[in-house]
Amino acid sequence: MTPREARSLIRTGRWEGWTVYKLPGYVQCNLVLLPQADAYDFLVYCQRNPKPCPLLEVTDPGDPEPRRLAPGADLRTDQSSYNVFRHGELVERRQDIRALWRPDLVAFLIGSSLSFDALLERTGIPLSREVWVLRTAVATVPAGRFRGPLVVTMRWMTPAQAILATQLTARFPAVHGAPIHVGDPAAIGADLAHPLNGSPVERIPDGVMPVFWACGVTPQEAARQARPEFMLSHTSGHGFLTDVPTESLSFS
Amino acid sequence: MTPREARSLIRTGRWEGWTVYKLPGYVQCNLVLLPQADAYDFLVYCQRNPKPCPLLEVTDPGDPEPRRLAPGADLRTDQSSYNVFRHGELVERRQDIRALWRPDLVAFLIGSSLSFDALLERTGIPLSREVWVLRTAVATVPAGRFRGPLVVTMRWMTPAQAILATQLTARFPAVHGAPIHVGDPAAIGADLAHPLNGSPVERIPDGVMPVFWACGVTPQEAARQARPEFMLSHTSGHGFLTDVPTESLSFS
Repeated sequence: MTPREARSLIRTGRWEGWTVYKLPGYVQCNLVLLPQADAYDFLVYCQRNPKPCPLLEVTDPGDPEPRRLAPGADLRTDQSSYNVFRHGELVERRQDIRALWRPDLVAFLIGSSLSFDALLERTGIPLSREVWVLRTAVATVPAGRFRGPLVVTMRWMTPAQAILATQLTARFPAVHGAPIHVGDPAAIGADLAHPLNGSPVERIPDGVMPVFWACGVTPQEAARQARPEFMLSHTSGHGFLTDVPTESLSFS
Repeated sequence: MTPREARSLIRTGRWEGWTVYKLPGYVQCNLVLLPQADAYDFLVYCQRNPKPCPLLEVTDPGDPEPRRLAPGADLRTDQSSYNVFRHGELVERRQDIRALWRPDLVAFLIGSSLSFDALLERTGIPLSREVWVLRTAVATVPAGRFRGPLVVTMRWMTPAQAILATQLTARFPAVHGAPIHVGDPAAIGADLAHPLNGSPVERIPDGVMPVFWACGVTPQEAARQARPEFMLSHTSGHGFLTDVPTESLSFS
């Protein structure tokens, strides 16, 4: 299946479940949509926090087409699940935002670590049992009203796999790059008993260690603090499927 | 000499000439200063054109201190030469812009390829006789009013050195990354007889080939087309000297 075919299934309500581990080899994006009045501060926030917010495309206000990453796609219908925030509170989840569209909305497409799972697997690193999403005690750099904790994804692997995964993902800053931490979750204040996404973890199994990458859910936490009048985002585990092969974004 | 000491010399009028090949090992930045009214479009322009505009810091409006790259520095006095543009026209060059400062000015610090010359030299690649700056026929991606041709730097080296330089600079997207072209200047519409900076070139010597990197002078060309009411920039060959070791920005 091509990303274009997958987006067509999503648009017509025939897609089921997450995009995690789907469409291997293509860049998946985290999505943030904001009114233009908040777009400048959010752009600066992304610039100051490139690990959680590697910005791959910014649309012109009101334009629902991501012309560079997925020409012909429609950001109002082609995402498998959207979060709707009002004044920073998550008020609903939707599969279609046409009724909420506004001419002043700017879309921010942020590279997702879901993009590199297929690359890890190709090097012989088995897929992590789950991809957990966790809030940390690490502060991001504020910009305007946007500020808040770094959110991370966590994967489990052996120490040798962690080294290989570090080497590999370092080549892809556009989808979060190298890990921000490896080992003890407490060192970054990650609470495994209360993940934002994924099952609570009682203990880490013998032989594997947790590896943490900056996560594109971070701006949703920042929005809780900035309380913008209106904001839309992807739902965790649901990436926007682009036409861009992840390998094409390799920096070396 | 440390970058801090060098900035002190610049601030007190005791620095002479370019920063090219000076302070090896530290990131030098290209500088753009714009009123906040034009800052959003310029931010999007940088996002859409990361090769010529790798944005390393954006200051808060009116704040002359680049808090992340050079804490304690003053962007009004610590740059060895500034270009002053009004409505897109270069009207003067200055060594101090305190008299022109405004509370709505936002500074954009963009990684400069001057940052990697020392890295190239350490691998055994001799410094290019000059670092030429050339306009090309390659269009950048527009954002709002900002659009225009890609500007490049050109260095001469042997084919083997060009390969090594490609490998090395690919690790540093923050200072323009890998070359955008190697070989025939006509293929990108670069006119060696009329460089923006450097001596006119009649013919390329035997045994070397030109290698082209995207250049932070590109936004000055975009400003000529956008014609913002007021804009300040660095002068070609004069980088803003940061405290950041270039190696610390390696992506792999």
